[in-house]
Amino acid sequence: MADWQQVDGGVTAPKGYTAAGITAGLKPSGAKDLALIVSETEAIAAGVFTQSVVRAACVDYCRKVLQKKAVARAILCNAGQANAATGEQGLQDALETARLIGENLNIDPNSVLLASTGVIGQRMKMEAFRTGIPKLVAALSPTGGEDTAKAIVTTDLVTKSIALETTFGDRPVRIGGISKGSGMIHPNMATMLAFVTCDALVSSELWQQMLRRAADKSFNQITVDGDSSTNDTLLALTNGQSRTPAIREMGPDAEKLEAMLTEVCQYLAKAIARDGEGATCLIEVQVSGAPNDADARQVAKTVAGSSLVKSAIFGRDPNWGRIAGAAGRAGVNFDQDRLTIKLGEFLLMEEGQPLPFDRQGASNYMKEIAAKSSGTTETGKLIQHLDNPLIIAVNLGMGSGIGKAWGCDLSYDYVKINAEYTT
Amino acid sequence: MADWQQVDGGVTAPKGYTAAGITAGLKPSGAKDLALIVSETEAIAAGVFTQSVVRAACVDYCRKVLQKKAVARAILCNAGQANAATGEQGLQDALETARLIGENLNIDPNSVLLASTGVIGQRMKMEAFRTGIPKLVAALSPTGGEDTAKAIVTTDLVTKSIALETTFGDRPVRIGGISKGSGMIHPNMATMLAFVTCDALVSSELWQQMLRRAADKSFNQITVDGDSSTNDTLLALTNGQSRTPAIREMGPDAEKLEAMLTEVCQYLAKAIARDGEGATCLIEVQVSGAPNDADARQVAKTVAGSSLVKSAIFGRDPNWGRIAGAAGRAGVNFDQDRLTIKLGEFLLMEEGQPLPFDRQGASNYMKEIAAKSSGTTETGKLIQHLDNPLIIAVNLGMGSGIGKAWGCDLSYDYVKINAEYTT
Repeated sequence: MADWQQVDGGVTAPKGYTAAGITAGLKPSGAKDLALIVSETEAIAAGVFTQSVVRAACVDYCRKVLQKKAVARAILCNAGQANAATGEQGLQDALETARLIGENLNIDPNSVLLASTGVIGQRMKMEAFRTGIPKLVAALSPTGGEDTAKAIVTTDLVTKSIALETTFGDRPVRIGGISKGSGMIHPNMATMLAFVTCDALVSSELWQQMLRRAADKSFNQITVDGDSSTNDTLLALTNGQSRTPAIREMGPDAEKLEAMLTEVCQYLAKAIARDGEGATCLIEVQVSGAPNDADARQVAKTVAGSSLVKSAIFGRDPNWGRIAGAAGRAGVNFDQDRLTIKLGEFLLMEEGQPLPFDRQGASNYMKEIAAKSSGTTETGKLIQHLDNPLIIAVNLGMGSGIGKAWGCDLSYDYVKINAEYTT
Repeated sequence: MADWQQVDGGVTAPKGYTAAGITAGLKPSGAKDLALIVSETEAIAAGVFTQSVVRAACVDYCRKVLQKKAVARAILCNAGQANAATGEQGLQDALETARLIGENLNIDPNSVLLASTGVIGQRMKMEAFRTGIPKLVAALSPTGGEDTAKAIVTTDLVTKSIALETTFGDRPVRIGGISKGSGMIHPNMATMLAFVTCDALVSSELWQQMLRRAADKSFNQITVDGDSSTNDTLLALTNGQSRTPAIREMGPDAEKLEAMLTEVCQYLAKAIARDGEGATCLIEVQVSGAPNDADARQVAKTVAGSSLVKSAIFGRDPNWGRIAGAAGRAGVNFDQDRLTIKLGEFLLMEEGQPLPFDRQGASNYMKEIAAKSSGTTETGKLIQHLDNPLIIAVNLGMGSGIGKAWGCDLSYDYVKINAEYTT
């Protein structure tokens, strides 16, 4: 069982962090659009960024800063303009925002990390930063996690925030995180952003390794439409304020921390998949029997990303042939005569042979999952549930490799959201 | 300019071929569903097949036959059942259909190639083959090309057929071809099939090389939804009946023949992309300035396959950011500051800098292309035009590599077609 419990507070749950989210005037809507996370002391910082060669200025900036020294004091994130495809001016603008934070917090500008999301090719509204940043710094609070989660979204339907707590000896250690997914009612607002805070004391090399592995099992395993962004950024700070023993190499404490970090990342990643444009349910693809874990993850992601599988799920059609077809083209070699496919509890194909199954029952299972996948609170706030995804289980019958991926169904609304931006 | 002209007749245009397409009772609709192409003499045969590890019995059968000896006399193709995920029984059924053709044509069953398209996981209706094949053989005709084109489709809106003629010395040489695309109103009817006939005299090794290269520039460069099939098959016969000099190595004649073969394959491939489910227009992505041709093709295919680009085109939205984003994640390294993007005649981005452009004019260009992309004959038959695609031109500014890819827009109807199969 999990060795941790959920706590409130998001990125401000761990010790030694304050945060704020305000309306600075970057979004035309007037919604919150500027977020700041600050560690009271210097934190070990690690980042994972878009692999695209078309990258936002903030991505190049963060890479450079972290290469020099893997520490940071603050993360500034704006929504409204992506600061991508903005050339040399974009880099100057990024540097200016870091300078403003440094000045207002009285810290080294090189200890400020940056992230942006919004329209590609538009210059950031620098005047909004100049007037907004003093207000943002004044709003910093040890309970500011939720405001921060609100300020980084674009057209997400719900905010995504989590915090977990475990103990090392008798002292609590916490990890908090927030994320945003893709929403593209505006053109090109397609960014995946996630920020994680932690109060454990970890060496920077180990923290980066843990984050990379956690990302491979979480953010790198979700797919909404196969399009990755110019701005995708995952940043993780850990500041040692839990005052627990230093973790410098793998061992029981490190494994526990990495497991909790992975859990936080998977929660935030699943929340993005569930909130995919037009989605009506969360899909979890579980692959086993692969030659190795990387192959399993590859097959899982291919199935979760198949437009045909996604359309069938929107139609509540237990169409196992499309699942087999997607698995077969994933680039992983296996023997089709050993392939076994389950949808929830329904065994559809076993050792390569299609089985007779309760088609109506399987379709009903899909309908029930979708019906239970969202709800509203007493105050009418939309909630999306992540704990009961639609399960597709694929066994390749080859080895002991396992892996999971998460996606969502493909609905009319996906096309509508992405086509009906009127120029 | 092209060194050839278009002629009538499809796969029966080259010398020494007969063909037929009949209703054998494999499709519930009563439409033509069984096709046969026969070369009067033994033809050199080459094939390119799905890379999926989940493959139909006919694909495994053809591979084995062609590995033994790269010659054939006939191609039998059925629509209705895909004969995929049918286990050992499926292979026995495939062998039985080859035996029936051998018996009725009085030829070696091992000289019969097979292709199937239709529902995955259902056994082929063998009784329909037993009663249909004698009728099919009786219907063989030197003008049977069009009937054959009709019998291989599933839910394609139009048939796809072409023939080109050139001269070697004073003698004509012809290549004919037919293809079908994906239509999935029935579950899993997702097959790309193409059959090419030629009357040149070519060595088998060279013919296979030519076909592989032509496929890389045509069928491997189209994308409708990124899902490849269990049954994808391209077969090409050449029987030497033009009585032109034997072509055994590359040289002017071989280059001319390969160029014409590539043209036939590109026509058939573009016709499949244009007829993609729910599509309203054909998209051609032209990439130049890549490190090499393979990289250029990779970038072109990634842009053509991007759900965001496809949705934007359906919305007639000149959304260059999505084009840049897709190019950036194609896995080809380039400098974003050299990236140039054009949509038709509209220059949207130059050397990495977004340009002001006539947004309404660009949107109108997209609307006009779509409006002109189909029509009807006097008899009301639907025609899809391939000669005026929507052009996206991307220059990476790196080298001299060029490549093209073709796709279609992503519309509500794609989701509708693939979701609304009711179980």
